[in-house]
Amino acid sequence: MRFAKGHGTGNDFVILPDPDGTLPLTPALVAALCDRRRGIGADGVLRVVRSAAHPEAEASAAGAEWFMDYWNADGSQSEMCGNGVRVYARYLAEAGLVDPEGSFDLVTRAGVVPVTMGEEITAGMPVPRVYVQSEADSFGASFIGTAVDVGNPHLVCAVDEPTLEGLDLTRAPAVDPLIFPAGVNIEFAAAGPAPTGSDLYRRMRVYERGSGETQSCGSGACAVAAVALYHAGLDSGVVVIDLPGGRLTVTSTPTECLLRGPAVVVAHGDVDAQAIRQLAPTYS
Amino acid sequence: MRFAKGHGTGNDFVILPDPDGTLPLTPALVAALCDRRRGIGADGVLRVVRSAAHPEAEASAAGAEWFMDYWNADGSQSEMCGNGVRVYARYLAEAGLVDPEGSFDLVTRAGVVPVTMGEEITAGMPVPRVYVQSEADSFGASFIGTAVDVGNPHLVCAVDEPTLEGLDLTRAPAVDPLIFPAGVNIEFAAAGPAPTGSDLYRRMRVYERGSGETQSCGSGACAVAAVALYHAGLDSGVVVIDLPGGRLTVTSTPTECLLRGPAVVVAHGDVDAQAIRQLAPTYS
Repeated sequence: MRFAKGHGTGNDFVILPDPDGTLPLTPALVAALCDRRRGIGADGVLRVVRSAAHPEAEASAAGAEWFMDYWNADGSQSEMCGNGVRVYARYLAEAGLVDPEGSFDLVTRAGVVPVTMGEEITAGMPVPRVYVQSEADSFGASFIGTAVDVGNPHLVCAVDEPTLEGLDLTRAPAVDPLIFPAGVNIEFAAAGPAPTGSDLYRRMRVYERGSGETQSCGSGACAVAAVALYHAGLDSGVVVIDLPGGRLTVTSTPTECLLRGPAVVVAHGDVDAQAIRQLAPTYS
Repeated sequence: MRFAKGHGTGNDFVILPDPDGTLPLTPALVAALCDRRRGIGADGVLRVVRSAAHPEAEASAAGAEWFMDYWNADGSQSEMCGNGVRVYARYLAEAGLVDPEGSFDLVTRAGVVPVTMGEEITAGMPVPRVYVQSEADSFGASFIGTAVDVGNPHLVCAVDEPTLEGLDLTRAPAVDPLIFPAGVNIEFAAAGPAPTGSDLYRRMRVYERGSGETQSCGSGACAVAAVALYHAGLDSGVVVIDLPGGRLTVTSTPTECLLRGPAVVVAHGDVDAQAIRQLAPTYS
């Protein structure tokens, strides 16, 4: 089985080229591929399949050629992933399947996403909606935060630089279950001087619902940008955001949220689908 | 740059075929390859190089054709790794470079290691030497242990099954610095009924010096086997050991310690040595 591996700001993916949708992908196979010691290892799988060849994409494609069939490392499916879109797009460009300097529409389970290629890659994200103030408690400390919906729920807490540095995110901060009944992604963000060409700057860390602290979260960056603009009294602007895994830039207007960042494919190869599923531990 | 990826009981390696020793391998490149999100990801790198082509192996090879040039994930070099030897040997056999059913000698920085191929692979390890009783303290609980030298230092603590299950190994257990001035690998082992064909059985977990809890440790399994035999009053025997990453079998005599276990190569490919070194995080 052919594969490629790539990442965007440290969020990494196994890419499976399957234009005709013939690969018998199962949750068990996805989990085996994403196993970091017994498989290739990744945060998720991106199956590169034509919309016309995938039952979930056919109806919504509206002429868009490619469907991002995205799976989480545990074998569940997911609707959308901002870093995944960029890595998927980089793969398409390097494979000669889209123009490396052009634009195209990518079908995802959350709808059609506009993508603009270049040295960095820009993807259209859901427009964030700031809605309420709440708080997060971590190891006895309490943080005031702002809730934001970016298709998924976020709580963005403003902190200063030393606090950001010293945060212990080995355990999930506690939040109000009435406001976040399905859990929430929690961002901690510190302001800094805006680089040339941008309006605002944040350095952030994120605790992702179900995953713990991660190196990067695309929707989290959009949430942080939305709260930064909101508190600055701006309805539009460019926000540069440094995450542990690298830099993302959010360009926001009342009707659009564009997430720009790096994406790279680092390896290509063949994986033995049998070998990664044998040798299960006898321990448990 | 060509690579393969494989593992033995969950201890995984990037394998670099470099028979003529021409690859400009550096600590930075090794660390980039082993980075689990930005590179391929592994516990270490095994460079497959002929003894005659490597300055460190030439003198000690004594006619043995292949040298295991082993590097840790952080870019440092290491002398020996029992799981690494098996994965290296599996690679050689699949590449048609050794007889998949035969025996051969492999040069390592710790000397020449005899290897016997088969469905599982057996490697000769340093003969363990049991030397003193000491103790380990973990989260307020104290464990009596037996110190063993297997080329590197180990402390093997006997526990019962529920204790083994409940152990918190997120932090290094404390040990006596006078007995272990350079630190120690700490094993916790519970006895169980010996499978047919073996003399003793242990289920174990290991906290590796410098790495934390790992899925498997070859020398740790040899240490556990040595202590099991010692306490049973045996000077030879077969000990079956289940680790979190799978099963290893140690066959021990006063003059020999053979470690047998699975090894599998799961993928082959090309990695972009430039791509894995770009996009360094801007965060810190």
